[in-house]
Amino acid sequence: MECLSWANPIPRTPLLRPSRTHQLPPKRHRFLVFRPSRCQKMYVPGFAEASPEAKAAKNLQDFFTFVAVKIVLAQLESYNPEAYKELMEFISRNSLNDGDKFCRTLMRESPRHQGLALRILEVRSAYSKRDFEWDNLQKLAFKMVDDSNTRLMRDYVLETSHLENEK
Amino acid sequence: MECLSWANPIPRTPLLRPSRTHQLPPKRHRFLVFRPSRCQKMYVPGFAEASPEAKAAKNLQDFFTFVAVKIVLAQLESYNPEAYKELMEFISRNSLNDGDKFCRTLMRESPRHQGLALRILEVRSAYSKRDFEWDNLQKLAFKMVDDSNTRLMRDYVLETSHLENEK
Repeated sequence: MECLSWANPIPRTPLLRPSRTHQLPPKRHRFLVFRPSRCQKMYVPGFAEASPEAKAAKNLQDFFTFVAVKIVLAQLESYNPEAYKELMEFISRNSLNDGDKFCRTLMRESPRHQGLALRILEVRSAYSKRDFEWDNLQKLAFKMVDDSNTRLMRDYVLETSHLENEK
Repeated sequence: MECLSWANPIPRTPLLRPSRTHQLPPKRHRFLVFRPSRCQKMYVPGFAEASPEAKAAKNLQDFFTFVAVKIVLAQLESYNPEAYKELMEFISRNSLNDGDKFCRTLMRESPRHQGLALRILEVRSAYSKRDFEWDNLQKLAFKMVDDSNTRLMRDYVLETSHLENEK
């Protein structure tokens, strides 16, 4: 099976086309059969320059920085307790909410901190490309949305039926 | 090429094995050559019950709720200004950071608000499954991490070379 991903967005199998010997549908139906509408997406306002995907990617980038810091801390804890302490102390003073700002400040703290910052940059790139399970993210997000929707509606129904019984 | 993903974690091609006619390497090297380590992922601490993917999926779920509210508002604005005003007023009093909490409160506000809440639940599910471009998210996240890493390092180099020139 061929992977459909950003690196390989176009499948090598050609688009489905009627063969010469294929029976064509009546003329008035041809448009419907062979040219589905190209855009049926819902309009999302308020993302003037960036798309919702870009906004979500920026959040993920900050998340990858957070994960990279955790990975580097776990590695340092066992074989370089001094660097571990230094990084922990730096984290206590600087928020990790904005990943890039955190790395920028860390680079300028001291030459030793600069080495740590470079390592965090390297780890967040490697983690996002190699370790993070993108397929799993999508699967979990679908499941979470469905489960939450069901739970919210069930809770409401249970609550109101309870109130009605009391009446 | 076969996809390595959550749905298909084990490739169907057998692990590399020497054929009968193949010249075996010296005995002390055999382990290294024919048994590659199965897990080469970096250890990520601090996600006790949930995986990093689950944590990221939860964030995306809240993001989808935010997007669904924006979509519903844009739809209401043109053909139901009264409901639009009501929803805007509700948003000004309730944070959208926790999507589920927002929907739970909205459902209990009034019967009209309940209808809006149900619509938001429906839209966030449809948006995540149909409209959101998952491949694009991955592509953008890779690009953002790479671009940010380059920018952070370039800025630092420019800054320090400037300081050295001044000396």
